[in-house]
Amino acid sequence: MDERQVRMALMCVSEPGDLRLAESIRDLGLEGTWREIVRDRHGLWGRRHKALDLAAVERATRAHGLGFLIPGDPGWPTQLDALAHAEVSEMGGAPLGLWIRGERRDLAGLAERSIAVVGSRASSAYGEMMATEIAAEVSDREWAVVSGGAYGIDAAAHRGALAGPGGTVCVVACGLDRDYPRSHHDLLATVAESGAVVGELPPGAHPMRSRFLSRNRLIAGLATGTVIVEAAPRSGAKNTVNWAEALGRRVMAVPGPAHATTSATPHALIRSHAADLVTGGLDVLELLAPLGQEMLPLPEADQRPIDGMDRRHRAVFEHVPGSGEGITVPQVAAASGLPAGLVHAMLDDLLVAGFVLSHGGRWVLAPGSVG
Amino acid sequence: MDERQVRMALMCVSEPGDLRLAESIRDLGLEGTWREIVRDRHGLWGRRHKALDLAAVERATRAHGLGFLIPGDPGWPTQLDALAHAEVSEMGGAPLGLWIRGERRDLAGLAERSIAVVGSRASSAYGEMMATEIAAEVSDREWAVVSGGAYGIDAAAHRGALAGPGGTVCVVACGLDRDYPRSHHDLLATVAESGAVVGELPPGAHPMRSRFLSRNRLIAGLATGTVIVEAAPRSGAKNTVNWAEALGRRVMAVPGPAHATTSATPHALIRSHAADLVTGGLDVLELLAPLGQEMLPLPEADQRPIDGMDRRHRAVFEHVPGSGEGITVPQVAAASGLPAGLVHAMLDDLLVAGFVLSHGGRWVLAPGSVG
Repeated sequence: MDERQVRMALMCVSEPGDLRLAESIRDLGLEGTWREIVRDRHGLWGRRHKALDLAAVERATRAHGLGFLIPGDPGWPTQLDALAHAEVSEMGGAPLGLWIRGERRDLAGLAERSIAVVGSRASSAYGEMMATEIAAEVSDREWAVVSGGAYGIDAAAHRGALAGPGGTVCVVACGLDRDYPRSHHDLLATVAESGAVVGELPPGAHPMRSRFLSRNRLIAGLATGTVIVEAAPRSGAKNTVNWAEALGRRVMAVPGPAHATTSATPHALIRSHAADLVTGGLDVLELLAPLGQEMLPLPEADQRPIDGMDRRHRAVFEHVPGSGEGITVPQVAAASGLPAGLVHAMLDDLLVAGFVLSHGGRWVLAPGSVG
Repeated sequence: MDERQVRMALMCVSEPGDLRLAESIRDLGLEGTWREIVRDRHGLWGRRHKALDLAAVERATRAHGLGFLIPGDPGWPTQLDALAHAEVSEMGGAPLGLWIRGERRDLAGLAERSIAVVGSRASSAYGEMMATEIAAEVSDREWAVVSGGAYGIDAAAHRGALAGPGGTVCVVACGLDRDYPRSHHDLLATVAESGAVVGELPPGAHPMRSRFLSRNRLIAGLATGTVIVEAAPRSGAKNTVNWAEALGRRVMAVPGPAHATTSATPHALIRSHAADLVTGGLDVLELLAPLGQEMLPLPEADQRPIDGMDRRHRAVFEHVPGSGEGITVPQVAAASGLPAGLVHAMLDDLLVAGFVLSHGGRWVLAPGSVG
């Protein structure tokens, strides 16, 4: 079996987002993990391995006109690799591969300039209008729109994106041979034409609650930032926001009438400063300008570079010393209480933006950032 | 002439918010300033002095059933004294006194637990509903509502407050013998019954544009925090928010439909983090809990005391050294770029909250705030 086959086989026997699999791969590698599964036939993975006909999965993939991407492939969206360090409610890990429908456009290129537009299925006409409009505005400026293909906000977002050249990516929670929801058959076909439909479940796999939750991490992980348009207090859309937060990606939210239940989650996120308020696609693009541009001088009196940073970049930045031999990622993680993966991602951003420097695994402030 | 008469006379010859008068009083004192005006009969103040019949003003005050409060009187709202250090578009200064209609309740007591609810005259039914509801909710919990008595949001706020025991205060931009707007005759009478109508212009004075602007500083100055409900991009309500900001008071804003012009200013303030999003009276009261309570542990990973502070408190706090002989207000002002008055106000708040200590005009961090 080559690496592509091992990855596909591992995806067939496990559930997406299983942290035990991620841990095993970290410890034993892909091949080692697979050998372990083959040897121990008692657990879930072992039992599924016994039933697995990998050649049949490969045939089904081809038969349905699907592709199978793995890290290292030219079209692989490297943003997803950040998921290796992110965890939300006992799920996490980067996907081992992606089934993809619609290879007319490069998934990596789409994801590089992409915005997740998410919200609840039980949306209002107002919310759907906003989702469509934001998606159309960013698509018009050649940003792709990532969403989940569900009723309500998701569908409105995909449809809005189709109006422009940006393209749209639908991340599903089942095999790509299934249309879920079934009435979105035509929509999914159009999305595949304009961009891509992707997922980490093999052909034939059904959608399940846990698969929606692990799917949400791919939506947040693919996109540069996530916009939540409408969601009632316990909507699943909040889960996608949690993933974006865990990844240190920017979270944005659309306001609505103060009493609208459909706007309760966006309002709560804005109120707690977990999300920035956006009223349209241009607001979104302004916030997603490269980190360095966001930090241009503020109109206010404060002048320190940290004032332009979001909470998480700042929390990490503030632990980096201005002189001496520097600080390591585990030290920053211990001092800040943030996960090491997130610390690393934030330091990488700060490095690119010129605020910190790294020497042999130790981090110090860049000269201009001191004081 | 006693101090009360000197103050009333100075208010009769000058325009509210005139910084030159504030400066003269700082340099020469009340009496000295008055003597200067009496001597130099050429300027505006001198010419008005020639026409002034102070006894007639006192008679008109009594005839209309008005009171005249000055600093030091038991009912004087000492929050207004912070205006001595605040300046917005070439206006500023604490009022020298206040004409007051409705002395059944203590103005100082009303102002101590009060919320300004402001917005544009050109309001929507949604905005008026929100203003009424927020005012009713805070009034129900015995917080007073301060506003300007205008059509639209102001009137809705006063009316909402009348539903509860909190009381309401209307700050007008003309003499208290005039009903402006005239159709609010009954509303103003009811406000005076439930709380107070106040202003710094003598009986007979007309409303003017500059007087609305100086009046706005009293609305922001009286209240613990200011809520902007609706305002189009160039609405005068933004001016009240600027005063609240200059005073370091909390600014809150009500969201609305993303495209509503009436919500453009609230959205812009929330988006730029100049205002916190509130969807009702309880949100407002939660934010206006005493500073120390606001800074209770956050749900997030960050633990430093500064994370609970707003931008201005933090900007000042961050310049206070943890050890050594401390820093002076002018030094903090120079280092932070903030006005000295604002720095002083922020340090006072931080002192009360236990984050800083003051020794002989020099400020240091309180022991628990270090690190």
